[in-house]
Order: sequence, then C-alpha cells, then structure tokens
Amino acid sequence: MESFFSFLEKRVDDCSSLLCIGLDPHISELNEPSAASALDFCLNLVKHTARYAAAFKPNAAFFEVFGAEGWTVLKQVVEAINQESNRLGSRIPIILDAKRGDIASTAEAYAKSAFETLGVDCITLSPYLGKDSIEPFIQNQEKGIFLLCKTSNSGSGDLQDLLVTIDYRPQTMDTESSSMVNGQSSVPLYEHVAKIAQTWNTKNNIGLVVGATHVDALKRVRAVAPNLWFLAPGVGAQGGELESALSAGLRKDGKGMLIPISRGISRAESPAKAAAELRDSMLEIRSSISGNW
Amino acid sequence: MESFFSFLEKRVDDCSSLLCIGLDPHISELNEPSAASALDFCLNLVKHTARYAAAFKPNAAFFEVFGAEGWTVLKQVVEAINQESNRLGSRIPIILDAKRGDIASTAEAYAKSAFETLGVDCITLSPYLGKDSIEPFIQNQEKGIFLLCKTSNSGSGDLQDLLVTIDYRPQTMDTESSSMVNGQSSVPLYEHVAKIAQTWNTKNNIGLVVGATHVDALKRVRAVAPNLWFLAPGVGAQGGELESALSAGLRKDGKGMLIPISRGISRAESPAKAAAELRDSMLEIRSSISGNW
Repeated sequence: MESFFSFLEKRVDDCSSLLCIGLDPHISELNEPSAASALDFCLNLVKHTARYAAAFKPNAAFFEVFGAEGWTVLKQVVEAINQESNRLGSRIPIILDAKRGDIASTAEAYAKSAFETLGVDCITLSPYLGKDSIEPFIQNQEKGIFLLCKTSNSGSGDLQDLLVTIDYRPQTMDTESSSMVNGQSSVPLYEHVAKIAQTWNTKNNIGLVVGATHVDALKRVRAVAPNLWFLAPGVGAQGGELESALSAGLRKDGKGMLIPISRGISRAESPAKAAAELRDSMLEIRSSISGNW
Repeated sequence: MESFFSFLEKRVDDCSSLLCIGLDPHISELNEPSAASALDFCLNLVKHTARYAAAFKPNAAFFEVFGAEGWTVLKQVVEAINQESNRLGSRIPIILDAKRGDIASTAEAYAKSAFETLGVDCITLSPYLGKDSIEPFIQNQEKGIFLLCKTSNSGSGDLQDLLVTIDYRPQTMDTESSSMVNGQSSVPLYEHVAKIAQTWNTKNNIGLVVGATHVDALKRVRAVAPNLWFLAPGVGAQGGELESALSAGLRKDGKGMLIPISRGISRAESPAKAAAELRDSMLEIRSSISGNW
C-alpha cells in the first residue's frame, strides 16, 4: 500500500507541478446561483487545468450551500477528476477542503463521508479537538489529512499565535525559535501543533496548512517539521508572495509544498494558460532558490 | 428582533427543560444503513420527544455520510421539527452540530448553508481560526453559535489544556483560576477561548461547548463567562455525571446550560419516557442545588 504523500509526490513528479487547483464555485463566480452552474464551473476548470494540477481541492462549503444538490455536484466533480486522471494516465489526488473536527463515532462518520461516500483522497482538519479526533482519518495510510496549523486569515493570530508553555524533552528544547523559561519552552500554539503533527505522522499521511501569507510562520514550521508537506493558501487573492513563501517553506528536496490557487485561475480569461503560467512560475522560483532542483 | 439566546430561554421556560435532544442517526442505530432509515429514526425521535426538548441537535456527520440523500433527510428533519413546534405552539430551537470553522467567503457560505439552505437556528463552530471565522455566523442576532471551548473527549487536553500566556488588563488579572508570572497571566487555552467569546458576545448569540465530563473546566469557564450559555455534552454515554455538571455550570438564575443527550434517549425502550425522566431529573437536581429555581 502506498501512503498518501507517496501518491502525491508521484503526481508532483509526473506533472512537474506544485500547483493545487482550488475548486471554489462561489456564487459570485457562477453564471447563475445554482448547483448546476457550480457543476459547469468545476467541470470546465477540471477539463482545462488537470494537466497542470498536482492536486485538486474542492471546498465543501461552496457545494454544501446548495444543500443536497450541492453534494450531488461534489460527487460528480470527484468523478470528473478521476476520469481526467484516467485520460492523462496519472492519478490526481483530490483534497476535500472541509476543515472538519469532531470526536469518536462522529469523526468516523466524517471520515467515511469523505473517503468512502465521496471518494476523495485527503481532507483538511482542525486540530482543536486533539489526537483522537484525527485518528479515524489517518488509520488508512492511503488517505491523508492536512491539519490546520497557521491559517492565512487575519484572525489566525487570535488563537494560533498564543504562546503556550510546553515541557519538551531536552533534545527539542534548543531550537532557535523557542524561548526557555525555567526549564520550559514557550512557543506559538501553531508551532506546537506542527511538532505534535510531526510525532503523529507515523504513516506518512499527515500534512499541515500553513498560510503563504505568513512567511515567518512557514520558516518556523519548516524548522520543526522538516519532512511534512504544507498546503500553503493565500497566494494571489490573499496577497501572499509566491517567492518568499516557497523560499521559506520548501523542503530540502524542493518538494513539500502545495500552493492552492482558486480565483487566480478561475477568473482568468484562459484558466489553462493561467494554470500553466502559475505552474511554470513556481518551477522557476524553485530553480532560482537552488540550482539542484 | 429577538436574540438567539432570548429565543432559547423562552423555549426553556415553555417546556421547563434543559434537555437538548441529539439527533444522531449513527448507522449502528438504524434498522438498515440508508438515508431513509436515518429519516425514520429522526422523525420517530422528534415526534415522541419534542414536548421535552429545549432544543434539538442534529449532528451533520451522520447525515453527510449518506451524501446528497443525507442532506435531503437533514432538511426534512428540520422541517419536521418546525411542524412539531407549530403543533406545540412553542418554537423549538434547532442547533446544527457541525463544528465548522473556515475563513472569509468560505465561512459566509457555511453560514448561508446552515441558516438559509437548511434553516437551522444555531451551529457549533471551532474557534481555531479566530474571530473573523466566526463573524459571518453572528451578524444576525437571531442566529446563534456554540463555540468549542473544552470538549468532552479524552484528547481534548492535547490543545485545549495547554497553558497560554496572556496580557490581560488589570481588572481581569486577579481571577482565582489564573497564575501570575511577571505581570502576565497563564491560563488553559480553553479558558482564554471562554474569555474572548465573552467579549465577542455583543448580540447575545454566542455560547460555549464545555463537556459535562470536565467538572473543573465547567467551574473555571463559568467563573470567567458568568452569563454565557453552555452546551455540555458527555452525560450518559461518555460518563459525565449530571449532578456535578449542573452544580458546576448552571448560572445563578438556574439556566445557562443545555444538556445534550442522544443514545440515552434513542436507545431507550420508550424515548418519550426516557426524555421525560431526563428532563425531570435535571429539574430536581436544579432544585436541590438551590431552592430558588
């Protein structure tokens, strides 16, 4: 069995791309406010951009807002991506951006909803409820999660930047990013989330959401989670700079970051051209950072 | 316009109940694993227990797992509750247990999904993404939220119990529950969430989820949020004790706590009898705590 991130890396290699194409059929983007129009919107994007997509990321909210019809469309979009994968001869991972987080049998139901009913490969989750809320999603190594760590929004600091006091074991106490007080370490909550996610990642199927809008956070999280994949939203519409984000967050092997773009592609005159250019920009920046990649 | 918690308090008075009836059509509870069976399960519970319900709380996961059909059923359940409310002549609040949490236009879409497409009155939300992730849900005072604070599960301590260092203003620095170091206050993350929720609650439509399984947390949160409503899960199946939970969490006016019960009612031979008995037990305990209520 292949782990989720082995699967993702294979696709990244196949298409030479770090671009994750967001499928956000926001009502303002549609010809008319209907589930049918959301389907057209997504099918058009999938058809024209699949060859440049390291992954597709449908956002559950923009389907859910249409009720049952929206969930029918979401399932159809998943099937369309799989058909496009077959056509290309390279399977494209599907990340459901749902930011779920619940406990026990409820978490199991959400996992089943995403991985079986819908059939996606990966889901975004909130860490607030702790490890037992994550477990039903990571039992099968073929399915993956991106755990919210440092999000791209302005309010992310309300909780995520709070300094938490932790007793880490000695070998992790001397990181540059933490300050020591009375034998304890004080780090931002998001950094602690990254550290525990790293320890939970025994099956190579846990990644982190770290906003491209927070370059310092990208650096700090990369320092404590050297191997994890990041999903780094905020490039484009939210103002994140591609070059500084990639410099701060790429792993030493030139991988480890997926850059989700939604409106920057869907609103372009030619989504295919926009996706190709974004893919190429990322590769150029990556090369300029290090000639080795 | 009536605020969400004024509406809830009216219903609590009308039915003399603090009981929130969970609608959790978990597959193991159903005659067969189908959306139709989930509908039967919920309609039967609604019909037999509505008169004792201060609120109904459908859990989105157990509907979502059936895909589009599940969302159709969830909408039908909301309509059935509203019909029962009409029959009783007292409107019963519907709390969607969904634990959503996202940003900007995505949060707006989730709010629209819950409050307009489904038509519920209240939703549970995660605080991890900060205030801007909450705002679309609290703009209309008639609609409410319960923000996750200290959840009932065993893993809740992973993040929620972490000690965070906060500079509170002097008047809030001398609470018994906080320890002072160098002019700063160190409190568990969940307690800080309660404090900021209290400050965000300018429209009387924010409550907190505080597990009945954590009596000490109920006391601490009640100390810093004297007026907020708590949704306190964990009584029964998760081992929370009703009396200790109510003693720790009730407001001075004998209200301020909703006790959600799911399996303790759905698995009873007579759900109506079980609901009536639970309602009455809560009232008795409340009376024994103070003769004034």
